[in-house]
Amino acid sequence: MPKIDTSSVPARKGSGYPSPFDEPCAARTRRRLGEAAGLGDFGVNLMTLSPGGWSSQRHWHSHEDEFVYLLEGELALIEDGGETGLHAGDCATFPKGTGNGHHLVNKSSAMAVYLEVGARNPHDLTAETSFNLRDATAEPMQLIVTPKAVSDLVCCRHSWV
Amino acid sequence: MPKIDTSSVPARKGSGYPSPFDEPCAARTRRRLGEAAGLGDFGVNLMTLSPGGWSSQRHWHSHEDEFVYLLEGELALIEDGGETGLHAGDCATFPKGTGNGHHLVNKSSAMAVYLEVGARNPHDLTAETSFNLRDATAEPMQLIVTPKAVSDLVCCRHSWV
Repeated sequence: MPKIDTSSVPARKGSGYPSPFDEPCAARTRRRLGEAAGLGDFGVNLMTLSPGGWSSQRHWHSHEDEFVYLLEGELALIEDGGETGLHAGDCATFPKGTGNGHHLVNKSSAMAVYLEVGARNPHDLTAETSFNLRDATAEPMQLIVTPKAVSDLVCCRHSWV
Repeated sequence: MPKIDTSSVPARKGSGYPSPFDEPCAARTRRRLGEAAGLGDFGVNLMTLSPGGWSSQRHWHSHEDEFVYLLEGELALIEDGGETGLHAGDCATFPKGTGNGHHLVNKSSAMAVYLEVGARNPHDLTAETSFNLRDATAEPMQLIVTPKAVSDLVCCRHSWV
């Protein structure tokens, strides 16, 4: 039966980022649909972002193309070129190796639901965009650009598994 | 700008099947979103199927996983196990190499819209499921299971490009 019962796929909450970088992604949920169904060539994840949530820290992939399709709600896509509004039915692509970090932020008051698709390449490294690292304990939020913080995140492999 | 203006991506109508196997897929449209945006690792296509339309002849891939997500409408998923109804929000996966051919048929009176994602592997061959080949000129439809017809289709590489 190739049809997937998405409700039976566990929703994993939060991210694997070290503290404090995990905080803005804490309410994110990810259902690994492709993994649950035995796909190996690429990953397909069903994601939810509650109001205020981030999809991830800003990042780009060295060896993996990425695609997102917004199913419900509104999201702000943030990259070097600025901010772009995404609405249900919009999609965006992130070719590997561009050096232009991106992430999605839910600035609305409603839940956003989207699909993310990513290649699986054992050589991939995810480069986090350092100027977007932040100190979640500061008010207002302060940027942290320390070699240690950056190197920690650059060394976090992004996993579609 | 990673956001894709889907309306600017050309909608290609029909399939590359030889006659008469192209007939049930004649009204199908495909927008190659990933290709338009320069993705190379996998293909993402935005598809429409009008009432009565088929996604393809029944087939399976030798070296490419496949994923579909139904955005609008209703489709019948047909495979060895029988027929499964898909509604908006449903998805299905087709791991490579199973030998279980599948296709989607729009038996409703409304347009169906879905995303299809497929790996890109230069070694892939698409095996069409022979018992589902049909003679579009016969009334009622007759199955054709000739070595020539089967070999023609088995040799049609399915292209995500």
